[in-house]
Amino acid sequence: MKLTILGCYAATPRTFTNPTSQLLEIKNRFFLIDCGEGTQVQLRKNKIKFSKINQIFISHLHGDHFYGLIGLISTFSLLNRNNDLHIYGPKGIKEIILLQLRLSNSWPNFGLHFYELESKESELIYEDDKVQVKTIPLKHRVYTNGFLFEEKIAERKLNVEAVRHYQIEKCYFQNIKNGKDIVLDGGTVVLNNLLTFDPEKPKSYAFCSDTVYNEAIVPIINGVDVLYHEATFLQSEEQLAAKTMHTTAIEAATIAKKAQVSKLILGHYSTRYSTIDLFKAEAATIFPNVLLADDGLSFDL
Amino acid sequence: MKLTILGCYAATPRTFTNPTSQLLEIKNRFFLIDCGEGTQVQLRKNKIKFSKINQIFISHLHGDHFYGLIGLISTFSLLNRNNDLHIYGPKGIKEIILLQLRLSNSWPNFGLHFYELESKESELIYEDDKVQVKTIPLKHRVYTNGFLFEEKIAERKLNVEAVRHYQIEKCYFQNIKNGKDIVLDGGTVVLNNLLTFDPEKPKSYAFCSDTVYNEAIVPIINGVDVLYHEATFLQSEEQLAAKTMHTTAIEAATIAKKAQVSKLILGHYSTRYSTIDLFKAEAATIFPNVLLADDGLSFDL
Repeated sequence: MKLTILGCYAATPRTFTNPTSQLLEIKNRFFLIDCGEGTQVQLRKNKIKFSKINQIFISHLHGDHFYGLIGLISTFSLLNRNNDLHIYGPKGIKEIILLQLRLSNSWPNFGLHFYELESKESELIYEDDKVQVKTIPLKHRVYTNGFLFEEKIAERKLNVEAVRHYQIEKCYFQNIKNGKDIVLDGGTVVLNNLLTFDPEKPKSYAFCSDTVYNEAIVPIINGVDVLYHEATFLQSEEQLAAKTMHTTAIEAATIAKKAQVSKLILGHYSTRYSTIDLFKAEAATIFPNVLLADDGLSFDL
Repeated sequence: MKLTILGCYAATPRTFTNPTSQLLEIKNRFFLIDCGEGTQVQLRKNKIKFSKINQIFISHLHGDHFYGLIGLISTFSLLNRNNDLHIYGPKGIKEIILLQLRLSNSWPNFGLHFYELESKESELIYEDDKVQVKTIPLKHRVYTNGFLFEEKIAERKLNVEAVRHYQIEKCYFQNIKNGKDIVLDGGTVVLNNLLTFDPEKPKSYAFCSDTVYNEAIVPIINGVDVLYHEATFLQSEEQLAAKTMHTTAIEAATIAKKAQVSKLILGHYSTRYSTIDLFKAEAATIFPNVLLADDGLSFDL
């Protein structure tokens, strides 16, 4: 699981900082999360192949989280994309994109599928054989979701020496990997745990931006490996955070602690701060394992 | 008159090139022409004060000419802009912008005025005491206008020595600058040309992008000081230019020659070319005074 931060600053794109977008690589799927203005250039700078992206998740309809989407879709078209593209985001996103495609008379030559979200409860919105994605309802000035990416429990790993020892034929291997016991020709039952090792623990990643401090998300993200949580402000701007429905670094760390996550990554910094070091210092007073996102940084998780 | 090229490449924003946008400074007005994705960052890089821009002209609704507009408007809001903003562009632009502002629940705190264009004839769309702007109907895959910016004829310049010689009082100066003759106390008429010098010749700038080769624009732009004309392709891609309704460098130069302009600036280069030098070489075979636009270049005109 690898996370590439394309942009992690709030509000406006600037010369050296970008609004929210990140690429999550998980089990060879490439999920784009949010798509602020300039995301396609950030993808180029980070040498990410455009054609690998098939799913885009948009948290909410504030510009710093989606103004780059229409441009990215148009560029997909110009690059003669064939693969279908699936977009998950708040109700209204389809109308915004289709209106612009219609008025520019540039309908894409690939399938464009929208999954509009309006539920206030966590829901499963994407699933394949290895990964699933659920929404994390957040509280912000407009309808907003975070996203929980979870690997599914993989099949058990074959103990090659053991199956050889019991002279088990290949045609039974898939059953064994699925957890089944085996009955030998003489009637002896060999328990599955003699024939397999535990699979790798499935990993999970939770993206939570933008939101006011909201303990209601704790049960949903409980125990995730990595939590990305917005921290727009430092403690000195606590009042402003509440007023604008954002979170401070200390509040983000409190959520991380209550949800017993393994790692916390902070981002969505207000552009008022000349350095982001204090975000880590403040969060670390509550929760030890804090990392700071920054544009162009990659995390191997 | 000063022209700053914020972006002059076709199709998609890339790491080191930007889609169309330019700032025309004329008589202390700052007109933004087109607004591709990333324009607000280009404005920052070129140290242009956002608050000086009060008029934005959009040629057509292809993404590389307007996808940066919604982001710029949002940033104006975040910067607590007070001045009204006036946007001139094809019918539909208002719906695109207002839909996004409505869905993001972020109505600007300044006046936002749209002037939607649908005429196929050249029309006067902006006028103040010193400058006027007319459309230049272009032929492209969607409804498109270029824009002709013209200084108005300035008032005549007072010949300070002459008015002193005739002992003319200050209260008559404005009449003299307006071209009036003066009757002295004894009844003598002093002709205006004895009291004034000719004003500076009013300057003009024509922006023409995107368009197929189209001689119908020649009478509209005839004799302008500076013509910016798109040259998406070199002569080797002449067929492709016609098919996609774009222009080659040689065709742009032909228009410049027929319209007897003083200077031609080329831009809107296809990103397929690794260097733009050949655009100048090809155009110069037809029209001598050719300049190449490039992102971040300024021209004092």
